[in-house]
Amino acid sequence: MSVCVWIHKGAFALINKATPRGSLTDTTACITQHSQSTVSLFTAQRFPRHTGLYAFVTHLLLARRAGIISIIPRLLADGGEFKSYSKAERGEKLSGEPHSVRMCDEELNPAAVAQPVEDVHGDGRWMSQHTRFVQECKDGEPDVLFIGDSMLQLMEQYEVWKEFFSPLHALNFSIAGDTTCNVLWRLQNGELENIRPKVVVLWVGTNNYEHTAEQVAGGILAIAQLLTSHLPKAKKVVLGLLPRGEHPNPLRVKNAAVNGFLHSWLPRLGQTQLLDVGREFVHSDGTIIPRHMFDFLHLTSTGYLTVAKPLSDLLLQILDETPEERQASLV
Amino acid sequence: MSVCVWIHKGAFALINKATPRGSLTDTTACITQHSQSTVSLFTAQRFPRHTGLYAFVTHLLLARRAGIISIIPRLLADGGEFKSYSKAERGEKLSGEPHSVRMCDEELNPAAVAQPVEDVHGDGRWMSQHTRFVQECKDGEPDVLFIGDSMLQLMEQYEVWKEFFSPLHALNFSIAGDTTCNVLWRLQNGELENIRPKVVVLWVGTNNYEHTAEQVAGGILAIAQLLTSHLPKAKKVVLGLLPRGEHPNPLRVKNAAVNGFLHSWLPRLGQTQLLDVGREFVHSDGTIIPRHMFDFLHLTSTGYLTVAKPLSDLLLQILDETPEERQASLV
Repeated sequence: MSVCVWIHKGAFALINKATPRGSLTDTTACITQHSQSTVSLFTAQRFPRHTGLYAFVTHLLLARRAGIISIIPRLLADGGEFKSYSKAERGEKLSGEPHSVRMCDEELNPAAVAQPVEDVHGDGRWMSQHTRFVQECKDGEPDVLFIGDSMLQLMEQYEVWKEFFSPLHALNFSIAGDTTCNVLWRLQNGELENIRPKVVVLWVGTNNYEHTAEQVAGGILAIAQLLTSHLPKAKKVVLGLLPRGEHPNPLRVKNAAVNGFLHSWLPRLGQTQLLDVGREFVHSDGTIIPRHMFDFLHLTSTGYLTVAKPLSDLLLQILDETPEERQASLV
Repeated sequence: MSVCVWIHKGAFALINKATPRGSLTDTTACITQHSQSTVSLFTAQRFPRHTGLYAFVTHLLLARRAGIISIIPRLLADGGEFKSYSKAERGEKLSGEPHSVRMCDEELNPAAVAQPVEDVHGDGRWMSQHTRFVQECKDGEPDVLFIGDSMLQLMEQYEVWKEFFSPLHALNFSIAGDTTCNVLWRLQNGELENIRPKVVVLWVGTNNYEHTAEQVAGGILAIAQLLTSHLPKAKKVVLGLLPRGEHPNPLRVKNAAVNGFLHSWLPRLGQTQLLDVGREFVHSDGTIIPRHMFDFLHLTSTGYLTVAKPLSDLLLQILDETPEERQASLV
């Protein structure tokens, strides 16, 4: 069940009705009435730089900002897959099957746009790490794949990794500083090739400083969807973002909001569980102590235990649920 | 033995001769002939915004850029201390002792300007860590003080810290991402109060992306000088910057150049040793392997051993050299 967005000439007027000053009803109606089938859209002939999709996306954003509707989550909730052309030439009439199909989330949500990290400092470390992960895909056969940022990358340096996760045949493709965009890029560029993990653990989002909580959650959702399409049999565990900073602050509020969105969206994806242990880190006076987070973000070995124990339990439970496959891998 | 720079009216012409288009000889001569005593300088009356010192500094920079002379290192090599007014009012005649004495390096070198980290993300983590370190100064009596960036901060999270450094009564005031500027600010704002460590270990500079190798080394020198003035009895160990990146790259060249400057400058400071183990990390084919640096910058537990063993030996040797004080601290 998918919703395809076609870009045609001539129907711009329909979109154009949904300006912020005008009524948004037409756009909304347009989407909802076609939500189980196909939506036709038009290139914006009057705005050379605004292709149909661009205008469409702009209006969707306006509609969302106006609080009228949150299109994408609703489509996803309906089990729909929102596809679109990524771009259309000015006035170009497109016909036939889309030549470039993308999740519309990517277009709408800057946190769901795949992007490599630019090598601004000149030592090429990010790409070196990605290349190494791609190579590890060729050499290893992990049962559990960890994907994320420094929160998971550092974990591999601690005893907790050896104790809880190495024995599960785990690979860890995590890079400090990564956002959802960077993880998306890595996964689209080789880090899922040649491997068939039974479980993927995803922990990313606290570095998405430029994005809203909803966008960050959407970015995480996009990664989960990508995992589903590449590894349809794999279970997914998404770790909730931890609170950060010694005292209550806006980033704690935002990370909690991300977890809130994930809590309501992820169950609909199927095969996906959210593990959120953030409240364990905040004391009754609202502080986080360096004994758990040495820099009020990254975890000490003590702090990692709080995450690793329930995560390990969950992973063992999931791996036990697929005993035949496990047996096969042991032979 | 110190060189005081006095700012007076009337002698601007002397400085003015040393324009980039004109001869630089006069400025050079001016410095060298007075290098063991006092140098008179003049406010730049013709440039309201350019006080004497500003013009002087500008011309020193021009002289350095022209390759004529490296004034500050030479003064330091002569055992001189380069003092100056930080600012002079337009046309103001200053007399008597300087009311505000600073190392001229600070004026010349952006890597030697004390600067806190701006809380761009809004969780206040950097300042929380600094505040915690200042508090630890009140509570602890360290024999060894570690100061630096992530290279030292992460070390405290590894077993190597417990094995080699905790037993030495060590405190660790290190924050990931810090530059020489940030460390200078922290040390000038409470992190050296109330403590009298016997040895200070300094490891910072690899994050100074905006500065040249000479500037970075100058920033490290400025920190070492600050340590000397606050803790005149303490020995100092400066760790050389490690190579970084999987393959040879400009940042490796730069970090090696920083070490080169330190190698020639630090011995003249007295009580200061450079420990440079960088070459241990580079294989014969020029690569650095993830077994030593998991992200081609930060160390694994195996990588830390390469640093910790010789550092620990050196610290024990230094601590043994002051047996009476050590005995006193044990009583």
